[in-house]
Amino acid sequence: MLAWQYTGDGEPIALREVDEPVAAPGQVILDVKGAGICHSDIGMLDGTISEFLAYRPITLGHEVAGIVRELGEGVNDFAVGDRVAVRSVVDGPGCACNGGFQPRIAVRTSELVHVPEGVPWDQAAVSTDAGMTSYHAVISRAATKAGDKIGIIGFGGLGSLGSFMAMRAGAEVYVAETNESIHAKIIESGVSAVSRSIHDFADLELDSIIDFAGFGTTTAAAIDTVRPGGRVVQVGLAVRMGTVDLVNLTMRQIELIGSQGGTNEGNAAVLQLMADGHLVSDTECIGFGEIGNAIERLRRGENTGRFAVLYE
Amino acid sequence: MLAWQYTGDGEPIALREVDEPVAAPGQVILDVKGAGICHSDIGMLDGTISEFLAYRPITLGHEVAGIVRELGEGVNDFAVGDRVAVRSVVDGPGCACNGGFQPRIAVRTSELVHVPEGVPWDQAAVSTDAGMTSYHAVISRAATKAGDKIGIIGFGGLGSLGSFMAMRAGAEVYVAETNESIHAKIIESGVSAVSRSIHDFADLELDSIIDFAGFGTTTAAAIDTVRPGGRVVQVGLAVRMGTVDLVNLTMRQIELIGSQGGTNEGNAAVLQLMADGHLVSDTECIGFGEIGNAIERLRRGENTGRFAVLYE
Repeated sequence: MLAWQYTGDGEPIALREVDEPVAAPGQVILDVKGAGICHSDIGMLDGTISEFLAYRPITLGHEVAGIVRELGEGVNDFAVGDRVAVRSVVDGPGCACNGGFQPRIAVRTSELVHVPEGVPWDQAAVSTDAGMTSYHAVISRAATKAGDKIGIIGFGGLGSLGSFMAMRAGAEVYVAETNESIHAKIIESGVSAVSRSIHDFADLELDSIIDFAGFGTTTAAAIDTVRPGGRVVQVGLAVRMGTVDLVNLTMRQIELIGSQGGTNEGNAAVLQLMADGHLVSDTECIGFGEIGNAIERLRRGENTGRFAVLYE
Repeated sequence: MLAWQYTGDGEPIALREVDEPVAAPGQVILDVKGAGICHSDIGMLDGTISEFLAYRPITLGHEVAGIVRELGEGVNDFAVGDRVAVRSVVDGPGCACNGGFQPRIAVRTSELVHVPEGVPWDQAAVSTDAGMTSYHAVISRAATKAGDKIGIIGFGGLGSLGSFMAMRAGAEVYVAETNESIHAKIIESGVSAVSRSIHDFADLELDSIIDFAGFGTTTAAAIDTVRPGGRVVQVGLAVRMGTVDLVNLTMRQIELIGSQGGTNEGNAAVLQLMADGHLVSDTECIGFGEIGNAIERLRRGENTGRFAVLYE
């Protein structure tokens, strides 16, 4: 079968022939039904975070949902035909083994979460990383609660979900987004205000700021903007190194906290929000053949929501 | 009377004539008995952190202990003759008003802590900033507990106290100190190991690292060294800007936490440790006339402990 693979830093993603997966003990074979395309895929392809890839060539695609097709030895917690999402982890598909940019993959069951009825495959796929990651960052790491003033930097796939989750938790949300063409859409989503830079909210004494962009400059701006004793949660990874004002961080007792991934419970919570109609990821669905092109569009910032590949 | 004053960025500390202090309502006049010299004084003099000084010229000296000489209007929680330490705060003596490098100062009572019998004036002075700050960083912000492995960067005035407090809390302590001439002394103090760089302890999965040096590079090294999910507490302020690996911080969910100052309760806890004989700051006592020279020696790194000025 064909697979979209990373072959080396700086190389475009390549469509290559790969072997059928085999289920090791404790694993299942999935028929992939939906696979999200993530900014991390671009970071892997350009080399910024390719160190986390276990081997090469490797099939990318770490946001996967599908149907259990075959059980490996010793698997008794899932059955053939189960609809599942694969919580995205560094030692999982698309990073440590072939991912969802191929029609069938082998996965262990420890990250599988049941997909409730009524959740479409593109949404289920996006729940595994964008959804689960933003839930972990906004609800667990930033400890967002009712009455908080929360800053969100970057209103892409994760930021829009994180913004929605903060509002559902009862917080006021202030969004920094450099793409002014979507400012009207952001305001329509119910946030309190939107601006190009988080600096513009410096007078508001924001309790926490979640940086979904990760340009280094955004981290520095968040540290300068959050209230004394406040928390900056780092999620985005657009660049590796960031220069921050350590005097400001220290004298104002700011906390800069890394947030990566999440838990099965967090992923299940996101899927339930989707099933209940409370959460919809703004997703553009594409076919398998369009993956290479979609990654180029994402790199150039031409899309506003999330890409998800749907399989027949 | 004469006072040692900051007059402008890059200027040496200057001995100048100043007026006698007057106690405003809610303030007392102290006869200063001990005043510590701190690395922050150097940062103020060279301009790194002089923005925090409320006016200029201003008498430095933010680690002060002394005897209440006179009560301002409305003061009833302290009496003439009380032995007190002045918890160091940004809006207190040596920063927002004239500090302890002059014989008499006016202070409000909100930061005054009673000094127990048996605590010498040099130790009482050092408790107000070095002691209280290291207690806050190690015990409150790093949440050090028995069984933890704690890294301490910089074994100066604060680092040595912080190291001792971590050991008393039941932690194993690993010290990074570039001055190899004091490594034997550091080992004698009871720590588990000492090295030039915190990187050398990367295999130990340190739970927290407290950076009392603050050279930016030390913050970066601490983030690379602490265990996944671990905490780096920033205290030292030798440079303003630091460049850190945000990918590492995010993927390993590190927390970088600023720690500044502390509480009256923390200061009282440090004074009690001193009174009980459990804590002795390695202090070199000097006379009032030697302040300018001692600051130069501290700047050149020629002392190993802490300087404290003793008044007759």
